Amino acid sequence: MEIEIICTGDEVLTGATVNTNFSHISQRLGDAGFTVKWGTTVGDDRETLLDAFQRAAGRADAVIVNGGLGPTVDDLSQEVAARAGGVPLVFDEVWFSRMEDYFSRRARTMPPNNRKQAMLPEGSERLDNPIGTACGFALDIGGARFFFTPGVPRELHRMLDEQILPRLLARAGRPGVSVLKRFHSFGLGESRVDGMLAGIEGMVPDGTLKLGFRAHYPQLETKLLVRAASPEEARRKLAPVEAEVRLRLGNFILAEDDARLEGVVLDGLTRADDTLALVETFTGGGIAARLAPLPGGGARLHRAIIAPDRATLCAALALEDAAPADGGYDDALATVAARTARERAGTTIGMAVLIDLDQGPDRVEFGGTIRIAIAGDGRTAARRARLLGGRDWIRLGSIELGLDCLRRFLAGLPVDERIDFEKT
Amino acid sequence: MEIEIICTGDEVLTGATVNTNFSHISQRLGDAGFTVKWGTTVGDDRETLLDAFQRAAGRADAVIVNGGLGPTVDDLSQEVAARAGGVPLVFDEVWFSRMEDYFSRRARTMPPNNRKQAMLPEGSERLDNPIGTACGFALDIGGARFFFTPGVPRELHRMLDEQILPRLLARAGRPGVSVLKRFHSFGLGESRVDGMLAGIEGMVPDGTLKLGFRAHYPQLETKLLVRAASPEEARRKLAPVEAEVRLRLGNFILAEDDARLEGVVLDGLTRADDTLALVETFTGGGIAARLAPLPGGGARLHRAIIAPDRATLCAALALEDAAPADGGYDDALATVAARTARERAGTTIGMAVLIDLDQGPDRVEFGGTIRIAIAGDGRTAARRARLLGGRDWIRLGSIELGLDCLRRFLAGLPVDERIDFEKT
Repeated sequence: MEIEIICTGDEVLTGATVNTNFSHISQRLGDAGFTVKWGTTVGDDRETLLDAFQRAAGRADAVIVNGGLGPTVDDLSQEVAARAGGVPLVFDEVWFSRMEDYFSRRARTMPPNNRKQAMLPEGSERLDNPIGTACGFALDIGGARFFFTPGVPRELHRMLDEQILPRLLARAGRPGVSVLKRFHSFGLGESRVDGMLAGIEGMVPDGTLKLGFRAHYPQLETKLLVRAASPEEARRKLAPVEAEVRLRLGNFILAEDDARLEGVVLDGLTRADDTLALVETFTGGGIAARLAPLPGGGARLHRAIIAPDRATLCAALALEDAAPADGGYDDALATVAARTARERAGTTIGMAVLIDLDQGPDRVEFGGTIRIAIAGDGRTAARRARLLGGRDWIRLGSIELGLDCLRRFLAGLPVDERIDFEKT
Repeated sequence: MEIEIICTGDEVLTGATVNTNFSHISQRLGDAGFTVKWGTTVGDDRETLLDAFQRAAGRADAVIVNGGLGPTVDDLSQEVAARAGGVPLVFDEVWFSRMEDYFSRRARTMPPNNRKQAMLPEGSERLDNPIGTACGFALDIGGARFFFTPGVPRELHRMLDEQILPRLLARAGRPGVSVLKRFHSFGLGESRVDGMLAGIEGMVPDGTLKLGFRAHYPQLETKLLVRAASPEEARRKLAPVEAEVRLRLGNFILAEDDARLEGVVLDGLTRADDTLALVETFTGGGIAARLAPLPGGGARLHRAIIAPDRATLCAALALEDAAPADGGYDDALATVAARTARERAGTTIGMAVLIDLDQGPDRVEFGGTIRIAIAGDGRTAARRARLLGGRDWIRLGSIELGLDCLRRFLAGLPVDERIDFEKT
């Protein structure tokens, strides 16, 4: 099936807005086993829109159009769709009363120009938008089925998953649903995980399971995509595979689906009613800045101390230090810093992430030595790692390593399992 | 002049990479007074590329093609350009020796497959790439002039500014150059600045000066675009206008061109050999995380203390506090916190950013009161502001306000000029 995406709107065409809707649509279609062949971006202009629709109608089987369903005069998608399809616009009473409900539930009066959003091309199929006033719709134009979607990202995402993907699967002769399960890991390279999961697709013998990856340093996303007749069947097929992936990747799985590492860490702290004191050096507040903005983050992260070097660090913690003022860090200092931060802040957990950088200009071989210590009530854990790749790469990797060690500590897992990024 | 952009590459088409090159090209063309009419995204596929080139050749005057100039087998732009233009590929000795130099300067041997990057369509005009091995080129296909650019962003940016924009201006009958001057401000809304700069375009009576804005909360970018016969003439035209803009926007200009607020603050600290101790509450390390990663940031930011509430904050600074444990902040505490942080850290400057949030669920009217105090050697400055817009909005605005107050303090400017985002 040939699929095209048409993104509309002057903000996107002029570059004022970076087009993340395009990448989202293309990725989700790819996850569901479809390939996008062509992407078009045009502005809020009747003739150009018509041209874009007609060209796509002449060569594609399915077209996703994004944007132009709003209430203002520059929202032209319904009007141009009707022209391209050779049908009139008709008033959709069902959608109009949905909009009236939408406004009255918010104790607001519907402005008159919103009526425009209930004008749909005759014969089109409504695509539900449960969280907005822009009505999606599907319509045949030429030889292609067009799916019109709103520009607001969360409305688009939901309509794509709930309304459009099932219809595309049905048209592709794969009726049913396509369910995606995602695992996030830190510290394992893509080829390593590919090897660790060898044969996993064969666990679903009918060939409907597909394994995929998306590497975005420092994390790796492992994706299981399954097709099935119903969501229930998909879950049934996935359950043993998910269990097997958890078994094989083990402690390296830091979160699943929409969960993120910092959220898992915060959940861990909250569950045990723990509070945290952080000591950061080269990461410069990067670990604190991942935890603090989360809802409830402030109640757990009680103190963060950021210092550029050993002397300042020792002064901040009021530590007597026998090492020279310009000295680097050592394992013992990391542990002392974690314990002292915990004591002085009166928290249940203290963590120190101390980083010695190489000398000289930034380059791919530029490295850093990371020392992490975590002190809790009666137990401590420590970790040393060496990462290469230049200053930014080391900072990113160290923030992730620090958070991942904390996740492991909170879950009672070993914090010192070697990761693929480490050099010795 | 009708201009199109064709972005090539499977990473972009599949959504693995968000297409920031498209928005950059379109913005820069817009800055220079051109309008992009059509954007196309296609993958690394010969037939689709040819189709895309031919369609653009049939309707546009100028086409920017991005990507596909690399050394690997999936880099197809030269080959397909030659096919579309009906010319053979020929070996460009000049570019080949440039590549040999490039590798020998880096003490590396050129891999054999890089030879491919010196194969250009016969009759094409070379577009210099001084920082990479991908050779840009221009070629007539159908009725359009095609400009082929590399996918690496910094190579693209430079080629666009130095090679392509002057050629487009010449083709548009506006020979010469187009120079863009940018001012970054914090705290003034777009319509306010538009009013403050009323009549500024008239300072260049020949109509070659254009004023524009780009709002990206919390900052506003003010753009002056001038066309001239030469860079020298452009600078001559701009000089009095720049001076006038600086006069009218005054203390609100925080940086110009590529400079950024955090860099200006760090420069200010470095110039006076100052060191900084920070106290953050709700911003959770967000201010520290802007300064610390910069080159030299660690040498200036000596300590950052992050605390979620008044009680923890006072404990962290060993302050005796008469207020109730669950109390909010007050102006006096901000000043004491800044002074104490400075003393205890032994730095020359201490800054405290203390934020009281409203109660209840996040919403547009949700507000926060920000208290900022900065203590230096014998002088202190304080600022109170109230921002609305929900938690994330308040956090972003507070980080910017804190950094901007510090910039003003270091430059000897008043820190308490009212900003447009403030509510009372």
